[in-house]
Amino acid sequence: MIYVNGRVLSPLEARIDPADRGFTLADGLFETLRAYRGRPFRLNAHFDRLKRAADELDMLLPIDGTMLADAVAELLAVNRLDNGDATIRITLTRGTGPRGLAPPPDTKPTLVITATAYAALPDTCTAAIVDIRRNEGSPTSRLKTLAYLDNVLAAGEAGRCGAEEAILLNNAGRVACAARANLFALLGDRLVTPPISDGVLPGIARWTVLDIADDLGMAVEERSLPPAELEQAREILLTNSLFEIRSVARLDGRDLSGGDGLAMKLRNAYRALAAQ
Amino acid sequence: MIYVNGRVLSPLEARIDPADRGFTLADGLFETLRAYRGRPFRLNAHFDRLKRAADELDMLLPIDGTMLADAVAELLAVNRLDNGDATIRITLTRGTGPRGLAPPPDTKPTLVITATAYAALPDTCTAAIVDIRRNEGSPTSRLKTLAYLDNVLAAGEAGRCGAEEAILLNNAGRVACAARANLFALLGDRLVTPPISDGVLPGIARWTVLDIADDLGMAVEERSLPPAELEQAREILLTNSLFEIRSVARLDGRDLSGGDGLAMKLRNAYRALAAQ
Repeated sequence: MIYVNGRVLSPLEARIDPADRGFTLADGLFETLRAYRGRPFRLNAHFDRLKRAADELDMLLPIDGTMLADAVAELLAVNRLDNGDATIRITLTRGTGPRGLAPPPDTKPTLVITATAYAALPDTCTAAIVDIRRNEGSPTSRLKTLAYLDNVLAAGEAGRCGAEEAILLNNAGRVACAARANLFALLGDRLVTPPISDGVLPGIARWTVLDIADDLGMAVEERSLPPAELEQAREILLTNSLFEIRSVARLDGRDLSGGDGLAMKLRNAYRALAAQ
Repeated sequence: MIYVNGRVLSPLEARIDPADRGFTLADGLFETLRAYRGRPFRLNAHFDRLKRAADELDMLLPIDGTMLADAVAELLAVNRLDNGDATIRITLTRGTGPRGLAPPPDTKPTLVITATAYAALPDTCTAAIVDIRRNEGSPTSRLKTLAYLDNVLAAGEAGRCGAEEAILLNNAGRVACAARANLFALLGDRLVTPPISDGVLPGIARWTVLDIADDLGMAVEERSLPPAELEQAREILLTNSLFEIRSVARLDGRDLSGGDGLAMKLRNAYRALAAQ
C-alpha cells in the first residue's frame, strides 16, 4: 500500500499524473529513512531537511511533522511493517503543471510515501572512484532532489568496475560523496568528511556520525579532501540512513580491510541510538 | 489526449506508476519539438538523439522512427492540432522498479507523448547570467534527461533578475548554454558556440543553425567561450526547437538590441526550412 496525497492506496490504484513536474522535470525532493522494529529513526530530522529544501525551492509541503509521523505509522501498519525493519521513502513534488520550466502560480504539491521491508547489507563493501562528477556549482548538489540520474549512472559505473559503491569527485577534483552515501576518511587520528560546499548532501546519517564522533571524543574535520588523501586513509566509511555505516574494504585496487576498529565503534554507537 | 505506452488516453485516464523510475529518480529522457501546420519539424533528428541517448543509458526504446511518426500524427489529429503549430514532447523512462538505484534487469520502458498548441514568443528576449552552474563533469549535461531541476532553478533565478532567459556557465567558468536553449555569439564576423564538452546539450536547433550558417557561408566556430567575450559580442542568439532563434536584446545591464541583422538572416532561413 502506498500513501498518495492523504490516501493509502493499493499500488494499482495509486497514480501519478503524467503532467506532474516530479515526472516531467524532476521538480521535487525526497527523503529515505529506516524504521527499526516499526519505529522511524530521526523522522523529525528528515522532515526538517525536507521542509528547508522545500522552502529553498519555493515548494509547498502539505503536511506538518505530526501529520507525517501519523501517515508513516499508518503506512507501516497497513504494510505489516510495524515490527520489522523498513525503508521509508517520502517524495514531494511541486505538483502538476503545463509544459515548460516556469511553475504555475497555484500548483498543488504531490506527496507520496512508500514503506518496504529493509534487507540488511553487509557492514563492508568495495568501492571505486567513478568518472562522473558531482556538480558543486548547483544548489541541488546539497539537496535531495528527484534529479537523481547522476547517482544512478555513478552506481552503474562502479558496478561495471566490479565495485559495490561509487565515490564521486566534484568538478574541482575533490572527493564529494558516494552515489548512495556520505563519506568519511580516517586520516591519522582525525575523521575527515568533505564540507557541504564541495557538492555534498547534508546527510542525516552524516550528522548522526558527526555527533557520535564528537561524543566519543574523536577529532573530526569537515574539509576538502583531495582523492590522493584517500590513498593514505586508514579507514573509509560510507554513511546513509539505510545501511548506517559501511566500511570500504577495497577502494579500486587497494585493500583497506585491516582498519583499526573505528567503524565498529561508530557503528555500535549508531545502532545503540537507533535501538533506543 | 495523451499517448502512454501505445494507447491514446484522456488526461484523467493517463497514469504514471509511482514506482516509475522517471518519477522516483529522473531515470529517463525527453525530447521537445515543434510541429508547423501539423508537420513535426526534424522528428527524425529528435528520434535519433533519443535513440542514441537511450543506448548510452542502456535504456530500451519501445518504438522505431516510423511508429513514432505515426503516434505523433495520431496525437496531433485527436488533439485537433493537425493544422496549427504544436509543441510535441516525447518522454521515455526506464520503467518501474523497486526502491534503490540499481535498475531491475527486466524493466519495461514507459513512453509518453503529449501535444499542445504552440504559442509563439517574441523574437527578442532579455537574459541574465545566473549563479547555478552546468555540470560539464557528467554525461547527463550532454543528454536531454528528466533531471531538469537545475534548468528550472536557473530559469527562476533569471526571472528574479528581471530577465526572461538564463545563461549558465559551467564549473570551469565557461559559457555553456541557456536554461532552455543553446547559445551563439557573434564575435567579430565569426559565429561562436560552446562545444558539447563544455556541458552543452547537442540541440537539434543548434545543429540546424550550424548547417544554415554553413550554407550561408558564415564563419562558425565551436569553442569554449569565456563570459567576458559575451561583453564583446555584437549579437547573442539563443536557439531551441520551439522558439527557433531568439536574439538577446539585453544581457544583464547591457543593451544588445542594435545587432547587424544576423539573427534575422538565420531566422528567415530557419523558417524557410521549417515551412518546406
